Amino acid sequence: MMLVNGQPCDSVSALDRGLSYGDGLFETIRFEFGKAPLWARHMQRLAAGCERLRIPMPDAEGLWQEAQQVGSGQARFVLRITLTRGLGERGYAPPVFAAPTRIVAAFPMPAISRELFTGGIRLHRCRTLLADQPLLAGIKHLNRLEQVLARAEWNDPAIGEGLLCDSHGHAISATAANLFAVVDGVSVTPALDRCGVAGVARAELLEAFPACQVRDLPLHETLRASELFLSSSVRGILPVQAVGDTVYAPGPVVRAMQQHWLGLGFAMEQA
Amino acid sequence: MMLVNGQPCDSVSALDRGLSYGDGLFETIRFEFGKAPLWARHMQRLAAGCERLRIPMPDAEGLWQEAQQVGSGQARFVLRITLTRGLGERGYAPPVFAAPTRIVAAFPMPAISRELFTGGIRLHRCRTLLADQPLLAGIKHLNRLEQVLARAEWNDPAIGEGLLCDSHGHAISATAANLFAVVDGVSVTPALDRCGVAGVARAELLEAFPACQVRDLPLHETLRASELFLSSSVRGILPVQAVGDTVYAPGPVVRAMQQHWLGLGFAMEQA
Repeated sequence: MMLVNGQPCDSVSALDRGLSYGDGLFETIRFEFGKAPLWARHMQRLAAGCERLRIPMPDAEGLWQEAQQVGSGQARFVLRITLTRGLGERGYAPPVFAAPTRIVAAFPMPAISRELFTGGIRLHRCRTLLADQPLLAGIKHLNRLEQVLARAEWNDPAIGEGLLCDSHGHAISATAANLFAVVDGVSVTPALDRCGVAGVARAELLEAFPACQVRDLPLHETLRASELFLSSSVRGILPVQAVGDTVYAPGPVVRAMQQHWLGLGFAMEQA
Repeated sequence: MMLVNGQPCDSVSALDRGLSYGDGLFETIRFEFGKAPLWARHMQRLAAGCERLRIPMPDAEGLWQEAQQVGSGQARFVLRITLTRGLGERGYAPPVFAAPTRIVAAFPMPAISRELFTGGIRLHRCRTLLADQPLLAGIKHLNRLEQVLARAEWNDPAIGEGLLCDSHGHAISATAANLFAVVDGVSVTPALDRCGVAGVARAELLEAFPACQVRDLPLHETLRASELFLSSSVRGILPVQAVGDTVYAPGPVVRAMQQHWLGLGFAMEQA
């Protein structure tokens, strides 16, 4: 089920700036049994994106009620909130008075096996490099062609994600998850001030594990890390089993972070 | 009037990947009295974009007929063709069999005064810098937040465009037009292999004036150019009068290119 500006509807105007220019933001939020443990963080990131793009932030309480409405009767679902700058004349200039378009839709939870949670996921090393754009880094905007191109690089179902680097040889993230490494006994997650999306699960882990460093992470450090894992607000905390031919074993850091994740109220697996 | 996949319609599915990820391309094409002198070049660029993004190219003859249909009865209009990868499941992976969405819509021609054509246009120097992304450079894709941010930097109606640079100090383009400069007596237009959109009017001028160089154009050369002008397939060839406090006078090169433009069958001004 889907609501557009609060009304049951599954279409938007072909003149919406979200479609014309990718002029908007989105969030994907995991719900289990009526609860979304990271809801407040999703709202914080959406508000930060709205401020960056100067789109009025919708009322979070209203979004919550719309989420309940579209997810009604589903034990588990992924909520996608899309917020665009709304209708516009032809041309890049944002309208002086924007009337944003708000799309709230429920999708089935992706299947996540216990094996993935315990044994880990295999990564393709993407040739697509993320461009440096500090003005858009961190927020979850609708300009996602880099991720589409990167995700199109493989179709082997045994490979679950791709490792994305920037043009300076730093590891940044997966296509739809953040990256953590344990290098010389220290937990690290890449700085995201030039590219990448600052994930909500990543923010949760950084607050729960304040010793984790946020810094540039050269690819060569990533490849010699003692642990490598991904965080996603939908898929949770997943160990990386391999990047191409480089193999990793899940270690104590990812297990501690997975325990924290389960403690938030998320399940380990999804049928 | 608007056609979506050939049918009169003014909306698209809220699940369209054009909206979800900006996963698509567009063209804006100037029509006068049933003719679009640059039509073949627009089709070439659209095909190049389709190949880059691996979206099936629609039949150009069919697009032409849809253009005639939506523009029927209008002496002058701007046609926008938007082509997206179509519907998709949630997630970046492109569907194996894409059924693209094709939106063909007619918009009023923007007003262009003879004064602008003869005297020129004022440019704001944008703080927004274009990111280097060779995989997306040149094509007219739907990820246009950089242009939206740049265009939002000014609202003085006396300023007609913005000068966009990359992060290496090269001038690249305006927000919605290409840039030409005459430096030390030589015509130059910036190389667009790392960022920017390779305009159809620019391609026309490069073919008609083969002495024009395509190379990196440092901002300092742009600022000391003897002539500076913009090319746009909608607005034509417009001299630049000023970039901030740096003033320019239209010279023989822009006048020659404007004569070429008029020779294609475009009018000088639009009411």
